[in-house]
Amino acid sequence: MIANLEAATLKARLVAVDWGTSSLRGALLDADGKVLQEQTHPRGILSVEPGGFAAVFDELFGHWMGESGTRCLISGMAGSRQGWVEAPYCPCPASLEDVRARIVDQGRVSIVPGLSDEHDGVPDVMRGEEVQIFGAIALTGIRDGLFVLPGTHNKWAQVEDGRVMGFRTFMTGEFYALLSRHSILSRTIDADAPMDEAAFLQGVRVADNGHGLLHNAFGVRTLGLFERRSPGELASYLSGVLIGEELRTLLPQGHHSLTLIGAPQLTSRYALALGALGIQANTLGANATWAGLHALAAR
Amino acid sequence: MIANLEAATLKARLVAVDWGTSSLRGALLDADGKVLQEQTHPRGILSVEPGGFAAVFDELFGHWMGESGTRCLISGMAGSRQGWVEAPYCPCPASLEDVRARIVDQGRVSIVPGLSDEHDGVPDVMRGEEVQIFGAIALTGIRDGLFVLPGTHNKWAQVEDGRVMGFRTFMTGEFYALLSRHSILSRTIDADAPMDEAAFLQGVRVADNGHGLLHNAFGVRTLGLFERRSPGELASYLSGVLIGEELRTLLPQGHHSLTLIGAPQLTSRYALALGALGIQANTLGANATWAGLHALAAR
Repeated sequence: MIANLEAATLKARLVAVDWGTSSLRGALLDADGKVLQEQTHPRGILSVEPGGFAAVFDELFGHWMGESGTRCLISGMAGSRQGWVEAPYCPCPASLEDVRARIVDQGRVSIVPGLSDEHDGVPDVMRGEEVQIFGAIALTGIRDGLFVLPGTHNKWAQVEDGRVMGFRTFMTGEFYALLSRHSILSRTIDADAPMDEAAFLQGVRVADNGHGLLHNAFGVRTLGLFERRSPGELASYLSGVLIGEELRTLLPQGHHSLTLIGAPQLTSRYALALGALGIQANTLGANATWAGLHALAAR
Repeated sequence: MIANLEAATLKARLVAVDWGTSSLRGALLDADGKVLQEQTHPRGILSVEPGGFAAVFDELFGHWMGESGTRCLISGMAGSRQGWVEAPYCPCPASLEDVRARIVDQGRVSIVPGLSDEHDGVPDVMRGEEVQIFGAIALTGIRDGLFVLPGTHNKWAQVEDGRVMGFRTFMTGEFYALLSRHSILSRTIDADAPMDEAAFLQGVRVADNGHGLLHNAFGVRTLGLFERRSPGELASYLSGVLIGEELRTLLPQGHHSLTLIGAPQLTSRYALALGALGIQANTLGANATWAGLHALAAR
């Protein structure tokens, strides 16, 4: 016990950063991975001038880097071609060790690479979600199954013995934003209304009718036109049609374990849709990112 | 022969008008349905103030109405709640005679109703396409099969013995506009590039991979990111993914006849995608509208 305590105190703190397209989150972790402090800023890579990443980092996280031996690991779009420094994609299948071996050092900070996959000549990519998956594995001990990360561009990853065997991206979040704000459907939708479970689940069921999203989305217009659903209900219905479409294409594969990782307002919708299909899911939040960066930093 | 000629000259001319959401087209037809003159104006119903329809009509078509006995039939969104006067939807199955019986007279002009259908509690609607279908039947003599009308909101109608038994709307055209202009895909697409057949047909093939549009659309981004396709090719690829998705959901039903009706730049893409799947289609253009209004006007 004394030896373990000494080892822990000898190990350094970690500044864990998730630098995405539109937002920037950071956490100061102690040697055991415990979160000491957290910050979130609207300073995604799109808001940073080329060559300006080091200055933004120093401004926001410099005070966390003072203690001798403190490391910093950055995941997400900061490692893309438009980011701080490019960390080339690690191809699937990819283990924690494979990703760790491709971390790119950039002065005081290190950039975690994303993952790539390919299906029938069409590539797929993720940046940041791989860290959440490895974090979820570390937190739950689940080393096999489907890991689902809802967001603007959702990721569905197949994990075997702790390795990401492959994955697919679904533009569900972006389609919802496009359809509810920019399409003809925006006229019949109240996108700010609270979630309506019955309308959401009707959308999930309709999505499985075999006629596809291009047809089923139009139901949002006609249900409004015939006054069968209110504008608030139609926002939930559209969300159900989109999430149901996503589940339709993936669930026939029959997975024995399904882990949802993400913001509760999104994962709760997926859990509801899955529950209606008789499928239980484990759910994890943002702490998966910090656990993943902590696991990657371990030597 | 002489009797026939006399009957024809005794019949009156017809002012045939297709008044849509964003455009207004009209044709002056002789008693046999021959087009004497045509006009197109950017004066769709969205550009007309409430109560202003009669004035717009008089301004543009008044000079065609001078001859005694000239009738005017108007199809399209002019018969919607936001149009000149509401012509309630005619429910499917609907024959030419069913639609004719529900024409609404409004002074010197008559408004053709649209069609409605319903699938599992979700309504569907069309306004104007039903006239094109009846026109295509009149022009080709095809009274059974699938009639496909590409556009912003595509219609697929099942016709038996000249009656529209049912139909479904697909938002394919609107999805293309949304994705190519407003989504992350707009950054890797040159939407103004000429059609690239190989890229288009790759998109059509990919659409049939069982993973759905939400996933397959993301390939437009990754194929650009990995420089596998140029921005111009990716516009055609996205078009192929969308049209392929539409065909995927409808073709398994196995139709013995397929008729495409619409603008050549759209119907040619559908014909190309169908050809790749080994399916021949008949193709008709805008004249189907005038033939349909002529058929409806016949007593």
